[in-house]
Amino acid sequence: MTDVPKRLLLGRALRSDRLSETLIPKRIALPVFASDPLSSVAYAPGEVLLVLSIAGVSAYHFSPWIAVAVVVLMFTVVASYRQNVRAYPSGGGDYEVATTNLGRRAGLTVASALLVDYVLTVAVSISSGVENLGSAVPFVVEHKTLCAVGVIVLLTLMNLRGVRESGKLFAVPTYCFVLGVFALLAWGAVRAGVFGDEMRAPSASYGIHTDESGLSGFALAFLLLRSFSSGCAALTGVEAISNGVPAFRKPKSKNAANTLAMMGLIAVTMFCGVIALALATHVRMAEDPADNLLIDGVPAGAGHHQDPVISQVAAAVFGDGSLPFIYLAAATALVLFLAANTAYNGFPLLGSILAQDRYLPRQLHTRGDRLTFSNGIVLLAGAAAILVVVYEADSTRLIQLYIVGVFVSFTLSQTGMVRHWNRLLRTETDPARRRRMHRSRAINAFGAFFTGLVLVVVLVTKFSHGAWVSLLGMALFYVLMTAIRRHYDSVSEELSAEDPGERAPRPARVHAMVLVSKIHKPTLRALTYARLMRSDTLEAVTVNMDQQETDQLRAQWDERGIDIPLTILDSPYREIARPVIDYVRRLRKESPRDVVSVFIPEYVVGHWYEHVLHNQSALRLKTRLLFTPGVMVTSVPYQLESSELAKRRARRREQWNAPGSVRRGPAARTPGHKGTGNRRTGRRSGTGPSQRDGK
Amino acid sequence: MTDVPKRLLLGRALRSDRLSETLIPKRIALPVFASDPLSSVAYAPGEVLLVLSIAGVSAYHFSPWIAVAVVVLMFTVVASYRQNVRAYPSGGGDYEVATTNLGRRAGLTVASALLVDYVLTVAVSISSGVENLGSAVPFVVEHKTLCAVGVIVLLTLMNLRGVRESGKLFAVPTYCFVLGVFALLAWGAVRAGVFGDEMRAPSASYGIHTDESGLSGFALAFLLLRSFSSGCAALTGVEAISNGVPAFRKPKSKNAANTLAMMGLIAVTMFCGVIALALATHVRMAEDPADNLLIDGVPAGAGHHQDPVISQVAAAVFGDGSLPFIYLAAATALVLFLAANTAYNGFPLLGSILAQDRYLPRQLHTRGDRLTFSNGIVLLAGAAAILVVVYEADSTRLIQLYIVGVFVSFTLSQTGMVRHWNRLLRTETDPARRRRMHRSRAINAFGAFFTGLVLVVVLVTKFSHGAWVSLLGMALFYVLMTAIRRHYDSVSEELSAEDPGERAPRPARVHAMVLVSKIHKPTLRALTYARLMRSDTLEAVTVNMDQQETDQLRAQWDERGIDIPLTILDSPYREIARPVIDYVRRLRKESPRDVVSVFIPEYVVGHWYEHVLHNQSALRLKTRLLFTPGVMVTSVPYQLESSELAKRRARRREQWNAPGSVRRGPAARTPGHKGTGNRRTGRRSGTGPSQRDGK
Repeated sequence: MTDVPKRLLLGRALRSDRLSETLIPKRIALPVFASDPLSSVAYAPGEVLLVLSIAGVSAYHFSPWIAVAVVVLMFTVVASYRQNVRAYPSGGGDYEVATTNLGRRAGLTVASALLVDYVLTVAVSISSGVENLGSAVPFVVEHKTLCAVGVIVLLTLMNLRGVRESGKLFAVPTYCFVLGVFALLAWGAVRAGVFGDEMRAPSASYGIHTDESGLSGFALAFLLLRSFSSGCAALTGVEAISNGVPAFRKPKSKNAANTLAMMGLIAVTMFCGVIALALATHVRMAEDPADNLLIDGVPAGAGHHQDPVISQVAAAVFGDGSLPFIYLAAATALVLFLAANTAYNGFPLLGSILAQDRYLPRQLHTRGDRLTFSNGIVLLAGAAAILVVVYEADSTRLIQLYIVGVFVSFTLSQTGMVRHWNRLLRTETDPARRRRMHRSRAINAFGAFFTGLVLVVVLVTKFSHGAWVSLLGMALFYVLMTAIRRHYDSVSEELSAEDPGERAPRPARVHAMVLVSKIHKPTLRALTYARLMRSDTLEAVTVNMDQQETDQLRAQWDERGIDIPLTILDSPYREIARPVIDYVRRLRKESPRDVVSVFIPEYVVGHWYEHVLHNQSALRLKTRLLFTPGVMVTSVPYQLESSELAKRRARRREQWNAPGSVRRGPAARTPGHKGTGNRRTGRRSGTGPSQRDGK
Repeated sequence: MTDVPKRLLLGRALRSDRLSETLIPKRIALPVFASDPLSSVAYAPGEVLLVLSIAGVSAYHFSPWIAVAVVVLMFTVVASYRQNVRAYPSGGGDYEVATTNLGRRAGLTVASALLVDYVLTVAVSISSGVENLGSAVPFVVEHKTLCAVGVIVLLTLMNLRGVRESGKLFAVPTYCFVLGVFALLAWGAVRAGVFGDEMRAPSASYGIHTDESGLSGFALAFLLLRSFSSGCAALTGVEAISNGVPAFRKPKSKNAANTLAMMGLIAVTMFCGVIALALATHVRMAEDPADNLLIDGVPAGAGHHQDPVISQVAAAVFGDGSLPFIYLAAATALVLFLAANTAYNGFPLLGSILAQDRYLPRQLHTRGDRLTFSNGIVLLAGAAAILVVVYEADSTRLIQLYIVGVFVSFTLSQTGMVRHWNRLLRTETDPARRRRMHRSRAINAFGAFFTGLVLVVVLVTKFSHGAWVSLLGMALFYVLMTAIRRHYDSVSEELSAEDPGERAPRPARVHAMVLVSKIHKPTLRALTYARLMRSDTLEAVTVNMDQQETDQLRAQWDERGIDIPLTILDSPYREIARPVIDYVRRLRKESPRDVVSVFIPEYVVGHWYEHVLHNQSALRLKTRLLFTPGVMVTSVPYQLESSELAKRRARRREQWNAPGSVRRGPAARTPGHKGTGNRRTGRRSGTGPSQRDGK
């Protein structure tokens, strides 16, 4: 019934080939997994300058030092994750590492942090993408919130329709972007170094108003730390590769580690280059441009839009409005939207792993359960849209929320890795291996220490600026997932079969009944099938809703000579369910050890409105019967012609590819499983040794 | 899942006793069935004066003649319906009469007209009720639309909760109202005749502006006809009794006919009395009071609210704001709200009859199908609310739409009755009976002619004033019901069993399989039950989603020594449905004459969120399996502890009484049916003469 509006809105799901077993090569893996960290060069440098501007333009000279700190951190994190990738090639990522080594709570904390992060990746990347696009297309920046929500809706529809994340789709814009930035850096260096041009950014002549010029001591240190925290936005998404190891070609771990190193190198080069060019072209960024950015000595006012650093630098180097400038703005926006899309792909991946551990509904674990994935996607998009609307698509304000989650998972993951090596070292005796382990442990320990330190810095400097929102979100996810797990555990305990020895008294006989309303094909089919089942007793039951119809039924029964007794249940209030339920209950009471088997002829229909017109009573009766102990309910379907429609719809739905399929890689085909071709059947009366499939 | 918000909003359904078999006496039947026609005295006289005012105050002297015409019409209609009630005591009303005598199309037209009428009864009665209440409580009339919508919402919630229409609930306010109006008439007569008081209505001093004073000839005749059309609003709801004959005590037809006469007498007395008092107290009503009502020679303006005639008369006779005045205003409003409530009760009654004839979803026919009735009630309320909002709760404008439907059904019903008598006369030979029939036919013929004439007058005088909206609504209902009937017919044809002689080849054997995910109580129960069913072959089937879990399952299977072979289906894409469907299809292909019986262990849960967490894959698999021919699907329920909750909820839902239960009377208990106690069971192998229940 929900299918029709969806189809009207989304069109038919794209027919796409089944997830192939092809694994992705490094040159494709880089854009698939690195669009998020690479794209952050579009906003991270600006955030560094922006925070520094609080202490006045003079504070900009600290920015190279902050860049150095970010680079060191980046190398640390990349080096650490190269260890992760080698130690855990299964793709569980930080969640798996934390759970395995630090326990369930730590793992769940990491999972909550990552879920919040996915939401923020969408919100921040799209807001920043809109800002970058806006530097070339003024309309976009004038309707920032609207455009950002529009992009979210577009991405959501795309993912609901089942557009498969394809390597090529990611490769082209990401490489275009990287190429564009490197061209920018190179041309900027040539112009400055070779031609000695004086390049001036559009904001070069602006002044920065500050209440706190000449900040010093603790306040300055705090500001530098805050600036550093903002710069750390460049590190978001680094962990993505560690979740995607199974999708790599062999040798998986090695390829993943090398891709990680490549990504780190490109990211820091771009980051440092943009900061250097920003200083060279005298870019001015203010934290609150309406009040603090002075144009000819006057505050810029609410109508002024501060362009991102990368577009200001491009304007200075290439010329404002020039073709390369527009190319770079478009490529930046596109790569940012792709980065947002990675969250749409990463979410089902993480969801599937969490579902396997029963922290989320189990059906998330199966591929192709479109409905469930759709709910997840809508949840993700809804939360991101709320953030975008509340924060007016202002990437600067959204970034305050962003990096908390990342560093929570970095720190816990690296701590977990230290424990991992400790454990291995306890049993490892080979000196060469021990040496390698010691080295890995040292790297992870440093990573844990450094990222932990950054986490503290981020929390201290950003808590009141918005980080509390992230923490709240994490807490909500944590509580929800704990509750789901607790529910599954309690049900599992309730259901667990007791010892094979002590068994409940076996039911003795089956009393079968076929519900009959009139004699037509579905009824006849149900009678035939019920007879085949050879229950101990079999009767047909009808509810007398209308005496005339009942008399007619009885006459036809005679006429056809159906050799099954027909019981007529009285229904003084023209109900169907109650007389049947009462009858079944009485049967159960008369012989409590018997099982009652109820056969219900059912029409299978194709249109949603047919569901309204048919089967309602049967469905409700079925639901009611399931509450009655000692009953089994058999649907005997009769496929109406229109059911072909629904069948085709179901088949189409089956061909849908969940987002994240590529990242997940094909399901592990462990040896020893049996193909669907193998089966054994045996007589139910067989008392010999049980026959089993395979082995 | 929809239960929780409903319960939050509506509270628990009231526990009410089962519809008893008591039938209603005449003194209760009168208020139950007549609150609609009696309450129309609150607005009909005003409408007459209002239309006449277009020709100036002098035209008011035509009003007694119009009242006479309405009285003649009322007597005609009552006399006609007394024939209906006698000829058709089954309660089918106009719809049955028209269908039986004039064919399906006429019947469906009547049904469409009545459905539109129910919507308008709600809209008009509530708007008028708010206006009457407003004459005592100014706040109400100042927020007319809001208050009217509020009353609609209140009535809807009451009916959704399952407040039973009770005779007493109707009797008190209706008798209070009738008493109040008669007291008004009596005291007015005494004051005028005995004391010779000059009574002046609040609007007595106002002038009426008219562009067309001294209207004559055709224009005047048209205006008089329009005024008469408006006065005919007094006749709405007269047909209600003919739908409710089964609810009367015996002799049903006679009692119903007498109640009808009583109602007609009371209605015309009140109608004429109010018109007479309105003339005596110089009430002034203008069609467009803002422009045409002159207070001290100046138009009253948009802020002026014109009080209904009955409240103006009461102000003149009892004194404005006096206790009897307030009593009458309150009683009038209450009886009008009750009149609106009759639509909430009449709708399911008509819906049930239409559902029986397959013009509406069949489940409407069964009592206590709460969900379906709720949808109907919400539809009714939604349509009425839209009308109220669009027409700003202005009863004068809504009445333009009102009486079309009523007179369509009057005319068709009376025409049908003429045919009915013609048919009976063809075979009847007894002279006394023939005489009675001739007399009845004459009455119905006159009724058909007169109501047909009024219908033409109404259509001509009101079409552009809003009657087209009613006609559009009727057309919509007609088309919808025709489409539903066509669908049911085509399905019925598709399903109809061919001759008993020629039969499809009988399926030969049953191949049963139990779906297993892990070994727990639900699985063990399903295995036990499946074994009891003695199918030809039995196997357990599991889908290998996770090699480790599958290995564990296989080990437990061995350990427990379960003597059913276990087949493991491979699922490279971690799906459940597809491998099972493929497997079933292959089985069917291998032996097409076999039937596959799939047993699915199912948890029965109580909370809506548990549905999200469990059974999703099983449910979807079940749906998919039903599309596969030659398959039957058996749910083996395992009741979790929380299912008790849902069981209780279902029981509560069962105790709900559909609105309209009282009007419908208890379901006919025709002789010859068998109580639930009678049943026969027989061995399926029995080949002797078939055993059948009863007879």
